[in-house]
Amino acid sequence: MNPKPFAFEVTARQGRARAGIIHTPHGIIPTPIFAPVGTQATVKAVTPAQLEELGVSLVLSNTYHLYLRPGAELIAELGGLHRFMHWPHPILTDSGGFQVFSLSETRQVDDDGVTFRSHIDGSRHRLTPELAIEVQEKLGADIIMAFDECAPPYDRAYNERALERTHRWAVRCLEAHTRTDQALFGIVQGGVFLDLREKSAQFLVSLDFPGYAIGGLSVGETKGEMHAVLELVDGILPEDKPRYLMGVGTPQDIVNGILRGVDVFDCVLPTRLARHHAAMTRNGRLNMMNAVYARDPSPIDPQCSCYTCRNFSRAYIRHLIVAREMLAATLLSIHNISTLIQLVNEARDAILTGTFDQFAAAFFALQNQSNV
Amino acid sequence: MNPKPFAFEVTARQGRARAGIIHTPHGIIPTPIFAPVGTQATVKAVTPAQLEELGVSLVLSNTYHLYLRPGAELIAELGGLHRFMHWPHPILTDSGGFQVFSLSETRQVDDDGVTFRSHIDGSRHRLTPELAIEVQEKLGADIIMAFDECAPPYDRAYNERALERTHRWAVRCLEAHTRTDQALFGIVQGGVFLDLREKSAQFLVSLDFPGYAIGGLSVGETKGEMHAVLELVDGILPEDKPRYLMGVGTPQDIVNGILRGVDVFDCVLPTRLARHHAAMTRNGRLNMMNAVYARDPSPIDPQCSCYTCRNFSRAYIRHLIVAREMLAATLLSIHNISTLIQLVNEARDAILTGTFDQFAAAFFALQNQSNV
Repeated sequence: MNPKPFAFEVTARQGRARAGIIHTPHGIIPTPIFAPVGTQATVKAVTPAQLEELGVSLVLSNTYHLYLRPGAELIAELGGLHRFMHWPHPILTDSGGFQVFSLSETRQVDDDGVTFRSHIDGSRHRLTPELAIEVQEKLGADIIMAFDECAPPYDRAYNERALERTHRWAVRCLEAHTRTDQALFGIVQGGVFLDLREKSAQFLVSLDFPGYAIGGLSVGETKGEMHAVLELVDGILPEDKPRYLMGVGTPQDIVNGILRGVDVFDCVLPTRLARHHAAMTRNGRLNMMNAVYARDPSPIDPQCSCYTCRNFSRAYIRHLIVAREMLAATLLSIHNISTLIQLVNEARDAILTGTFDQFAAAFFALQNQSNV
Repeated sequence: MNPKPFAFEVTARQGRARAGIIHTPHGIIPTPIFAPVGTQATVKAVTPAQLEELGVSLVLSNTYHLYLRPGAELIAELGGLHRFMHWPHPILTDSGGFQVFSLSETRQVDDDGVTFRSHIDGSRHRLTPELAIEVQEKLGADIIMAFDECAPPYDRAYNERALERTHRWAVRCLEAHTRTDQALFGIVQGGVFLDLREKSAQFLVSLDFPGYAIGGLSVGETKGEMHAVLELVDGILPEDKPRYLMGVGTPQDIVNGILRGVDVFDCVLPTRLARHHAAMTRNGRLNMMNAVYARDPSPIDPQCSCYTCRNFSRAYIRHLIVAREMLAATLLSIHNISTLIQLVNEARDAILTGTFDQFAAAFFALQNQSNV
């Protein structure tokens, strides 16, 4: 294999919003982009063929989960994650940092790494920056993440300590990383504290990563605080590197992120909501189990062009939910992912044609009209 | 709508095996055919698009389930079952007879019909031949079934009584049926008793149905008894009408049925086994949760050309099962349905080319070699 190098080009700008292309060994990612999450090497309830039909160009998967089960060695032995999950297009893996702090039963952080118990069977494990990179090299995603410590957004002292560690770990991740066909992104942390965020962005920029993630947002802070962090970081991160806002996936947050220079988004929201009977639309969510839909012949969203909306009524979706049929989760996942893919595609087209201001204005006007 | 009439033509014969075409208002069904079951207006865990890709030409759905939930009026209001479940191809509905006897909590049979309690909420309902037809006319399937009484296969007295009732109900179903774009099939009953089966087949033939189902098999009788019934009935039913062996879906039973003149098969087996982690192959089942597959890079069945076998390893399927991912049921359902579709397609091709004897011999030789 002779992998193409990783590259990013910004092809159009309007205000802070950018449209671009990320080149990876497994194909291009047009930005801005939304990546659905395949936590356990599968985007829940949908096949890779369905993701392709949805126009998905990037899938995220979780190092923490795959490290625990089935294990990175097994995936490497079977040809790597692309082949294992049959997604021959770009993949991004996170570092496991967030999950160690949010999912594991107990954990002890020291300067060298984190010791934790598996959420599956309680077994003891230890992740270090070096191991997080080793695991991600075995998985073989196109974009991988530095191992970081996630702190609660409002705890100043915790964020100060965690940031120092995250920065030292970023250096170690860079040193440990050997695969030239993967791009390793640094992660800006610092909670809601703008001086910490500034320090973090500046330090990571000095390390010259090929891309930057903005972590620790969408975890309880206000929209105003999220936007302030994005605006600050946007002024520090280099224009010619992609920016990835981790774990963000409502239509509102995505448009707000694009307005503030973000290129890449990921979130479990569309597939998780689908399993809880909720359909996403640009101006709110519909609880498809609601009896009001029992005889409703219209599609979930008349504006949507996805497989689900082209072919199935709200009444049918509700029937599947009430009858506890798995197809409900599949059809709702397809619709919800499609809602976000169509949104970023339209945003991209608007940036390319210089109409993003109008697009964003129309989008927010719709929000204000809606009672949802 | 100007529905085409229902018609059947036998295009080739070899021994008792037949290849033919059933014409319906929603398209043609090449026979012999296997129909996957969409009990609640969905073949569990697969989309209609996936069924089309599998080459499925006929889907079965259950009158009993749809009558209880969401109700036939609702489906009729939404344009009928084809539109409701987005299956614009042929559909067959059973009459509800079998489910009333196998699923409902308590039931009382009288000469007019059956009173039973719903398996969902215990509510009281009553199905009569007339109502079973009315419900099936509302659902709007291309092939519908007469309402029958199912008796335990070895209870002679019960079978004698039930058969009389089934025959009287068959007459009432014919009288009640008004839609000219549906074919109503009569159901041959009689348990394992050949004289009762003979009587049943002769009586139903005298009513001149456009097709005949063979019911009450694959419910505990021996293979020899099943074959004896099929051979007897094959000699009585008219050559120019399709024969449908209800609820039969193992590869062995299908080939044995084709050898004895059967044209149509249906069964929940492929999708039910899929949800219990079992992969069907022509010569046995694989429990895909077995640890022996943990690092197995080969497809479920190297001979199989389905989406699952073209793209995914046994190791990946096992990972999905262990991780409790819904995609496991989807990928296994696709494979299992495909196994039976490929089997009937090859059988059909063999009949058309005069090589069905060799095909059947090779098939049974494979069975004998296998230890499964």
